[in-house]
Amino acid sequence: MANKKICVVLAGCGVYDGAEIQEAVLTLLALERGGASVTCAAPNINQMHVINHLTGEVTSETRNVLVESARIARGAVQELSTIDASQFDGIIFPGGFGVAKNLCTFAVDGALCSVNPDIERVLRDFAAAGKVIGGLCIAPALLAKVLGSSGVTVTIGTDEGTAAEIEKTGAKHQALPVDGVSIDTAHKVVTTPAYMLGQSVGEVAVGVEKMVAEFLRLA
Amino acid sequence: MANKKICVVLAGCGVYDGAEIQEAVLTLLALERGGASVTCAAPNINQMHVINHLTGEVTSETRNVLVESARIARGAVQELSTIDASQFDGIIFPGGFGVAKNLCTFAVDGALCSVNPDIERVLRDFAAAGKVIGGLCIAPALLAKVLGSSGVTVTIGTDEGTAAEIEKTGAKHQALPVDGVSIDTAHKVVTTPAYMLGQSVGEVAVGVEKMVAEFLRLA
Repeated sequence: MANKKICVVLAGCGVYDGAEIQEAVLTLLALERGGASVTCAAPNINQMHVINHLTGEVTSETRNVLVESARIARGAVQELSTIDASQFDGIIFPGGFGVAKNLCTFAVDGALCSVNPDIERVLRDFAAAGKVIGGLCIAPALLAKVLGSSGVTVTIGTDEGTAAEIEKTGAKHQALPVDGVSIDTAHKVVTTPAYMLGQSVGEVAVGVEKMVAEFLRLA
Repeated sequence: MANKKICVVLAGCGVYDGAEIQEAVLTLLALERGGASVTCAAPNINQMHVINHLTGEVTSETRNVLVESARIARGAVQELSTIDASQFDGIIFPGGFGVAKNLCTFAVDGALCSVNPDIERVLRDFAAAGKVIGGLCIAPALLAKVLGSSGVTVTIGTDEGTAAEIEKTGAKHQALPVDGVSIDTAHKVVTTPAYMLGQSVGEVAVGVEKMVAEFLRLA
């Protein structure tokens, strides 16, 4: 098996306003253990807002998605605008509210959300090139928004309201438990509910490991 | 085996000014997989400073260790001052510069560093009660500063300058590779180099998993 090159897109650093940290680390670990080489990337934009993760309150701070994502990646994160699909075998989006607040506005606008132009360009390029695309947690809603008109199938678990918004994009939603993986082989899209349903890092790890294994099989 | 209760102390959120995120997540995962129940805790103090993890530069921001630690713990983090050693079977300190900047001042002052009073109290209580104590990466330097007069043995890998500072506290330093675990059964202190030597999350995970297994055996 050749060494697969995978891009992991981070949306900040923290479940309530950025990338879900545990999901991101579990993804990086599973990719390395699966023999892949990883490039982390994030858009160079400000977060929608900053949440105090102890109280859940919005603060008056301003933080940048690329700069905060560098915390998870220990500095090794590229500007998303430089990512060229032809250099990779696949792309994965860990979850966290940052995906639905910073990369697109799904958390506020549901199926009518707007998508960051770099995110939309990268996702369309990977899909057009037949590269495999993965999403955890709420990230499948972003994949649905950009790729839904093709009839792609994804899972965000069992939340009916979120699933209904996803289906408005033209995408199909597959209800699955926390350790389930939705595999759309035609569109090469692989998704898992992660913390949309998980109650602990160990529970989430099972689904992430299965999802990354399926992802690398298609890559 | 009874369900072991373990306290994990976080020093912020990010390798250069807080807890090393990947080490923290790997520790939480290994503890859960080892059957332990985990309580995260952090001191309610401001960080020494805030580092832009993309550029490595100090910023003008102020961030709180407890509030930032909540990002890793998804909100579930307690004030360290409330931690009572009698309620736990052990305590683990993931690494990151935050341990040597926020929990103590080892990064600036070496063996002459000062230690946050709550951290010192908690560490002495756990040691006096014969509970097991674990440390990753640079955290063994903190353990040495507080417990060094007892002649405890720790490892931070192979960095000779850091090892020399550690030995000035009275502690002994054991040089080990990234997947090595120093086990001081007399003092019930278990340590591993993690990102003091590791080059990737997968490399670090091997040592963390071995360290947590030894830690739980002693707990």
